[in-house]
Amino acid sequence: MPTTETILSEEKTTAVPMHPTTFVIFGVTGDLAARKLIPALLGLYAKHLLPTRFSIIGFARRPFSREEFRELIRGRMNVKPGQFKEEDIKHFLDHMCYEQGTFDDAAAYERLAKRIKEIDDRHGQCSNKLFHLSVPPTLYPAILNNLADSGLSTPCADETGWTRVLIEKPFGHDLETARHLDKLLGKLFQEEQIFRIDHYLAKESLQNILAFRFANQLFEPIWRREFIDKIHIKLFESNTVGDRGDSYDPVGALKDVGQNHMLMMLAAVAMDRPDNFDAETIRNKRAQVLKKIKAAFGGSARCAIRGQYAGYTSEENVPKDSKTETYFRLKSFVNSSRWKGVPFYLEAGKAMAENKTEIDVYFKAGKKSGDQNILTFRIQPDEGIKIKFFVKTPGHEFMVEPKTLKFKYADVPAPNWQSMPNDYERLIHDAFVGDQTLFASTEEIMSSWKFIEAVLKSWTNIPLSSYAKGAKEV
Amino acid sequence: MPTTETILSEEKTTAVPMHPTTFVIFGVTGDLAARKLIPALLGLYAKHLLPTRFSIIGFARRPFSREEFRELIRGRMNVKPGQFKEEDIKHFLDHMCYEQGTFDDAAAYERLAKRIKEIDDRHGQCSNKLFHLSVPPTLYPAILNNLADSGLSTPCADETGWTRVLIEKPFGHDLETARHLDKLLGKLFQEEQIFRIDHYLAKESLQNILAFRFANQLFEPIWRREFIDKIHIKLFESNTVGDRGDSYDPVGALKDVGQNHMLMMLAAVAMDRPDNFDAETIRNKRAQVLKKIKAAFGGSARCAIRGQYAGYTSEENVPKDSKTETYFRLKSFVNSSRWKGVPFYLEAGKAMAENKTEIDVYFKAGKKSGDQNILTFRIQPDEGIKIKFFVKTPGHEFMVEPKTLKFKYADVPAPNWQSMPNDYERLIHDAFVGDQTLFASTEEIMSSWKFIEAVLKSWTNIPLSSYAKGAKEV
Repeated sequence: MPTTETILSEEKTTAVPMHPTTFVIFGVTGDLAARKLIPALLGLYAKHLLPTRFSIIGFARRPFSREEFRELIRGRMNVKPGQFKEEDIKHFLDHMCYEQGTFDDAAAYERLAKRIKEIDDRHGQCSNKLFHLSVPPTLYPAILNNLADSGLSTPCADETGWTRVLIEKPFGHDLETARHLDKLLGKLFQEEQIFRIDHYLAKESLQNILAFRFANQLFEPIWRREFIDKIHIKLFESNTVGDRGDSYDPVGALKDVGQNHMLMMLAAVAMDRPDNFDAETIRNKRAQVLKKIKAAFGGSARCAIRGQYAGYTSEENVPKDSKTETYFRLKSFVNSSRWKGVPFYLEAGKAMAENKTEIDVYFKAGKKSGDQNILTFRIQPDEGIKIKFFVKTPGHEFMVEPKTLKFKYADVPAPNWQSMPNDYERLIHDAFVGDQTLFASTEEIMSSWKFIEAVLKSWTNIPLSSYAKGAKEV
Repeated sequence: MPTTETILSEEKTTAVPMHPTTFVIFGVTGDLAARKLIPALLGLYAKHLLPTRFSIIGFARRPFSREEFRELIRGRMNVKPGQFKEEDIKHFLDHMCYEQGTFDDAAAYERLAKRIKEIDDRHGQCSNKLFHLSVPPTLYPAILNNLADSGLSTPCADETGWTRVLIEKPFGHDLETARHLDKLLGKLFQEEQIFRIDHYLAKESLQNILAFRFANQLFEPIWRREFIDKIHIKLFESNTVGDRGDSYDPVGALKDVGQNHMLMMLAAVAMDRPDNFDAETIRNKRAQVLKKIKAAFGGSARCAIRGQYAGYTSEENVPKDSKTETYFRLKSFVNSSRWKGVPFYLEAGKAMAENKTEIDVYFKAGKKSGDQNILTFRIQPDEGIKIKFFVKTPGHEFMVEPKTLKFKYADVPAPNWQSMPNDYERLIHDAFVGDQTLFASTEEIMSSWKFIEAVLKSWTNIPLSSYAKGAKEV
């Protein structure tokens, strides 16, 4: 028996991009670049998954010499001792250079263009270009417009080098701003050039939902309203807003994790089986679900709960009279023939008893017994899958008792884990090779905002409940 | 969450029979009585599951005084040191007495009747009577006819005491002899008085098939031809025939375990869901399956294999030219709307690599991947359930690999195991309380013999293959 088998028809293998590529990071001195981007690029480099001829250009406001810049990056890039060979780090840093400028200064983009031209001349061909916006969304318009004006967003005239742009969440803060950003991006880039990051999509445990659903014939036939009672998606964080009050308070839990991560989990668990596994088909199937999701009508607590943890308004940079929710639970439906009438509960909160993201699929109970099978996808931590089922209690009586069958990703033998890409490595790699499967399409983003706006409208009558820090539920 | 829940509607609890009961064992000095019956009665006694006023009368040919008899039983009854309290054993033996006689001696049955009458007089009422035939089937007619002639098979005139008879397998050695025995029994007893033992039916692991199928809504919808590819039932024994050549050789593997244990396993896995869980309904549902089972047509090895282990004809009391099969594998079908076209493979053998009885349910493979989910009911040893399924192989590639989810009965906490009845305790208890669920009905027996006879007819062209002792397959 083979120990590894290919799933479904389209086998996706790890492609190594070959063409020279230049990766530009706007806001390279920021937190995201230091914590996520640079380590991911280093990780890909160490795994030989970057093109041999790649360059990283950091762009930020402060002045640094090339050496100072490399020292800064090196000191901040947050890798564990022994995680990488010293030689790999050194050679990786050799590929980095720095361009100083403010984001609204046209001259800075011309210098950047010149810098890229020098690199291209060295390679003797026009390189591929990836722009990553590691800056607050308010700075997007300035950067995008300047990219356009400087000609940097245009692929090379000889058509050998593409340009792509990587956008972090939040993609807008409501439907209108999302549409505005989309319009701006649409002027400069085609949909296939835009990579909207929701790092949840790249999680192994989220992708395993698809693998599990579509590789196991056991489940697909019963994955529908006739057999499923309800689906409950939870994203609990034990941390409070801490010092992020200024960015969190205008947003709240629903927009912070509901509009993106939770809807992406819902899409993975509810989407129809795609006929093939290319990016366009998968994104379409996800979008079809998101288009059909509706919040349950009515103002009762059965349909929606909004909560704020006790002490939230005393957090740094949070207004004393803030009505922002740090917790929500809402009931929704997917209006498709597969899911009509099956409630999807979305529940998320900060300052909860534990960190736990999971999806519980409740199967319908036996006619008389009331026993429910529950299939749980654990997204994080302790990624895995468990099934609650019933076996006969040993003894004269014909009774049953619940048992749990468990699979944990951590039990997979070590060799697999060493080569396991983290979310960001995965996403950056896919942007390099042009695979948009794990990025949200504009259709998905707009549908999710439409849903969120409808929820917010229905919330006007829902009171804000207070809950103690460390609550298990609200 | 409750840790134990009742299954389905009809809850079967442990009833303690109250009416005085006399248990008569014909052939009490034999192996079966010593190894199985007496220890089971003692076990039930120690668990307070026998009526307070019960008597056991041993019947056999050799003369013993009451004391000699009790000493004999005590020395042979095969209980582990410390398994029972000394006091329990002593009090249990106080309930036993002995009646000497040959099985065809009418006078002996009159003495037996008189002995029972004395017991009834002591209790001041007519006791229930259970007759267990722990003798070779050739002695059944003599015993049954004498029981009738002596009036012992008739319930007491005042209708307070019932009579029941317990028959061990084999029930006949072909359809004709089974019918003959049935006819004989039918003259003396109603169907509800006849308890035909197939101890496989009483196994926890076999009953768990029903609990598992009907308590888990996850499986019932896909338990049919559209989703199941094939079912493979295996009963492998590592032992050879040893010194049982004289009884084994005229029978062979098919009749030894195929006609009874394996068909009972097939019935458990294939039967339709009963509307309620009373004995009649369950036995009917089993019988419906057995009536519809047909051997695959044709003489090819794909349909049937017969084997004999190398060295079998050198075993004690086995004819040198014996063509008896010690192994078989046969393909069959259940002609119902649920199972039409799904092969059921029955495979059994002696002198195999390991002791293993299990049922593998293969689900249909994915259209392109060929991956098959397999649900295995392990009947013995290491009773449990496992499911082979597929998860994403961690890494860039979208591949899957097989994993196994396992549940073992041995992992159930100890308190349950201590109170766990063994097969014989269970069966004798149920005969006491009149529950026939775990006993084969005449309809089941006749259907299974019809199937076996058809198989034997189709085997005339199948050559006998030789296999080495310790083979994994033939």
